[in-house]
Amino acid sequence: MKAVVLLSGGLDSTVCMAVAAAAGCELLPISFDYQQRHSRELASARRVAAHYGIVRHLVITTNMAAIGGSALTDMAVDVPAGDVARPDIPATYVPARNLIFLSYALAYAESSGAERIFIGVNALDYSGYPDCRPEFIALFQRLADYSTKAAVQDGRRITVETPLVALAKKDIVLLGNKLGAPLHLTTSCYAGGEEACGRCDSCLLRLKGFAEAGFEDPIPYAK
Amino acid sequence: MKAVVLLSGGLDSTVCMAVAAAAGCELLPISFDYQQRHSRELASARRVAAHYGIVRHLVITTNMAAIGGSALTDMAVDVPAGDVARPDIPATYVPARNLIFLSYALAYAESSGAERIFIGVNALDYSGYPDCRPEFIALFQRLADYSTKAAVQDGRRITVETPLVALAKKDIVLLGNKLGAPLHLTTSCYAGGEEACGRCDSCLLRLKGFAEAGFEDPIPYAK
Repeated sequence: MKAVVLLSGGLDSTVCMAVAAAAGCELLPISFDYQQRHSRELASARRVAAHYGIVRHLVITTNMAAIGGSALTDMAVDVPAGDVARPDIPATYVPARNLIFLSYALAYAESSGAERIFIGVNALDYSGYPDCRPEFIALFQRLADYSTKAAVQDGRRITVETPLVALAKKDIVLLGNKLGAPLHLTTSCYAGGEEACGRCDSCLLRLKGFAEAGFEDPIPYAK
Repeated sequence: MKAVVLLSGGLDSTVCMAVAAAAGCELLPISFDYQQRHSRELASARRVAAHYGIVRHLVITTNMAAIGGSALTDMAVDVPAGDVARPDIPATYVPARNLIFLSYALAYAESSGAERIFIGVNALDYSGYPDCRPEFIALFQRLADYSTKAAVQDGRRITVETPLVALAKKDIVLLGNKLGAPLHLTTSCYAGGEEACGRCDSCLLRLKGFAEAGFEDPIPYAK
């Protein structure tokens, strides 16, 4: 069975690839070059895809920075220091990003004959982005069931799978390790430097996960 | 009040612009260069935006053709001759296109502070695309209410407006004429030639609309 996998090149999406591979799916990874500050993650995504022997890795290019409204696409806005306990949605939120990404994934699933879409959203150890929550995914699924030719005319339902949604970051690290996911090839840092900053939300969550899992994070961090 | 308007450069979206202008909205048009066969429509969108004195016309570029699955983005698939009475969804359907476009429009509305999104979908004189139906729009609205920082944290609801959804093409032409919409600047033909083909679904629907409205279509057609 074919599965489209949203692959950013980060920890969670790479573990998602490993889950889809372990389920015996034919993997169709899709990544986005959306003018993100941390475009370094795309190189990671390519390395992860190569690790899994992927022949066709779809990279969608789009000028999302023109929309603005986020520290991740607007170089004039600084990436805030990490604070995953803050009550507000942080400046690294990108308006409607997961909705845009899932919409492309749905289009790709429809055109390629895939029946599943894997996305590594997580609503436990996360930055509070509204479009990572299970309720968002459930509503997207309803929309998908209603909006594609595949579903409406051909009766081919495309399901959105979120294997990590209820896992703590620690358990994501453990799962990735168990499945042999190439965690050493991944990048999570928002700052986009050669070495991970160790200070942004994404680094803090990742480091916490590895520490609690009892593993050393194999990627380099700035001293 | 600011309003994002999905502006393809065709008849319906241009009448939508006119409706939003007549409602007194500050217009924020968004168009898509998605490697469509009929990229000529983008030039029309720019002319329509200029007609309305728009300073910032956001054009999103994206390689949607890489996804495939449509006669409008795959040059190996011919645009079928028009037949709006056919039972099947035609080859000009683009997987998840309106979902992708609305998702970008939602992101733009969020980042720009717009409270409304206008889209010229129509489910009467149309090609049967599932993502033009009012049920699709209603589900998208629910998702929008749940997925943005604007709605979830700031209580700022962004509403999707479909002023043409229940109008016959004739009535869209009449409305555009009444509101002074620059219909002479629009392009509807899927084939993308210098003159409209007069044979595809889009041309047939448009010609029917003008004929029933009792106006001559001001754009040139191939003999």
